[in-house]
Amino acid sequence: MPVPSPPTRRPTVAMLVIGDEILTGKVTDANSPWVASRCRELGLSLCRIIVLPDVLDEIAAAVAEWSRRVDFVLTSGGVGPTHDDLTMAGIARGLGRQVERHGELDRVLQERMGKRYTPAAGRMADVPAGATLWWDGELAFPQVVVDNIIVFPGVPALLRLKFDAIAHRFGGTPTQTRRLVTTAAESEIADALRTVQAEHPAVAIGSYPQYDRRPWTVTITLDGYDTELLDACERAVSALVGDRFPHA
Amino acid sequence: MPVPSPPTRRPTVAMLVIGDEILTGKVTDANSPWVASRCRELGLSLCRIIVLPDVLDEIAAAVAEWSRRVDFVLTSGGVGPTHDDLTMAGIARGLGRQVERHGELDRVLQERMGKRYTPAAGRMADVPAGATLWWDGELAFPQVVVDNIIVFPGVPALLRLKFDAIAHRFGGTPTQTRRLVTTAAESEIADALRTVQAEHPAVAIGSYPQYDRRPWTVTITLDGYDTELLDACERAVSALVGDRFPHA
Repeated sequence: MPVPSPPTRRPTVAMLVIGDEILTGKVTDANSPWVASRCRELGLSLCRIIVLPDVLDEIAAAVAEWSRRVDFVLTSGGVGPTHDDLTMAGIARGLGRQVERHGELDRVLQERMGKRYTPAAGRMADVPAGATLWWDGELAFPQVVVDNIIVFPGVPALLRLKFDAIAHRFGGTPTQTRRLVTTAAESEIADALRTVQAEHPAVAIGSYPQYDRRPWTVTITLDGYDTELLDACERAVSALVGDRFPHA
Repeated sequence: MPVPSPPTRRPTVAMLVIGDEILTGKVTDANSPWVASRCRELGLSLCRIIVLPDVLDEIAAAVAEWSRRVDFVLTSGGVGPTHDDLTMAGIARGLGRQVERHGELDRVLQERMGKRYTPAAGRMADVPAGATLWWDGELAFPQVVVDNIIVFPGVPALLRLKFDAIAHRFGGTPTQTRRLVTTAAESEIADALRTVQAEHPAVAIGSYPQYDRRPWTVTITLDGYDTELLDACERAVSALVGDRFPHA
């Protein structure tokens, strides 16, 4: 449903997941579900998740579009040293910049890698002109940021570590979610739910049927910032589904 | 990496996952990983996965763009009877059409639902003008198709049933995937891998590090249609990583 206007403006986010391995189903993207959940908790509005192939012009076009449309673009993947790692070059092209060797980043790589540092490893210090490094929290390796584009690695454990280290910079207002589960059919309650939504514009109501086990149920979710408005909306939905709660 | 030109043209696919519940992380999208994997097996080129909010104009814009850019657009979600189910209206707007009650689909709903049929349920028969129904295989409920847009339900079990029933219509050429796992570091083999890729343009080489357990490994994948060309490429990669295979 269209998310109602919140009492405070929520920072907007788009996530670009970069990698043929996701589009070919060889690897399941564990990053975007995790980021989506964290964005909700932090009060950020995740507007889009886009999975892109390892193709320079496709990455560039998505970066150009979304860096204008949202407050923060998060990318995951495509930052290693191999021929299919094109995220930095794609961001540079999308912003109309050159890729340059970043002196500080190169020194960090050399220190961390020691003898394992190779010319190929050095390519991981090639970033778009104007990139900055965030050394937040306990990060052993800095977060690379280009304008409003935050460049995460594809490896889930590393992405999570970095995301949580820098999350304080997003400035969101945490939201609350309420859940009601009912055995009423979606088609039975749809009209009434539409009315409740209209009467409670500060709460976003979602409805999600589960058919994978009996009894079939519908989960109704209520999202909002304001506890009193959430309470009122929850009472209205409870009245609507009556005592149709599953006894499972 | 840029996927090399295949010997036969692969039909192109884009997947639009529609639903605030995915963007808020309340529900993990199980559909796009499954579809990605099936597309690879069927020899279809999945070019993009886009997760969209339940917002009419956003759905319409994505439909307008991708129905022109690829052979098949698959949508999942947003086809139930509630106020947040906007996929049909979004597709109609994207194609510049009206939404109309589909007589045959409405009769099917009435037959299947019996007493559970309500005015809200009837809205599930409201589809873009010009929509057609595919009654493939053992489908109890038809597949709704609008031009090159195939409208799947969001419920994973139903999506899979319908996808497999209609998969024969896509016309793909099945691909093969080979996998090699090595303990060599990505930065050690990156340059050599780039050369092997240049020498074997009919095979798409991917490289994916795993850092979640020791020893760290890199999985190298080879995708192609031609067994002999895959064999040759696999020999070249094996020679490159030598005996650096994990003994796990």
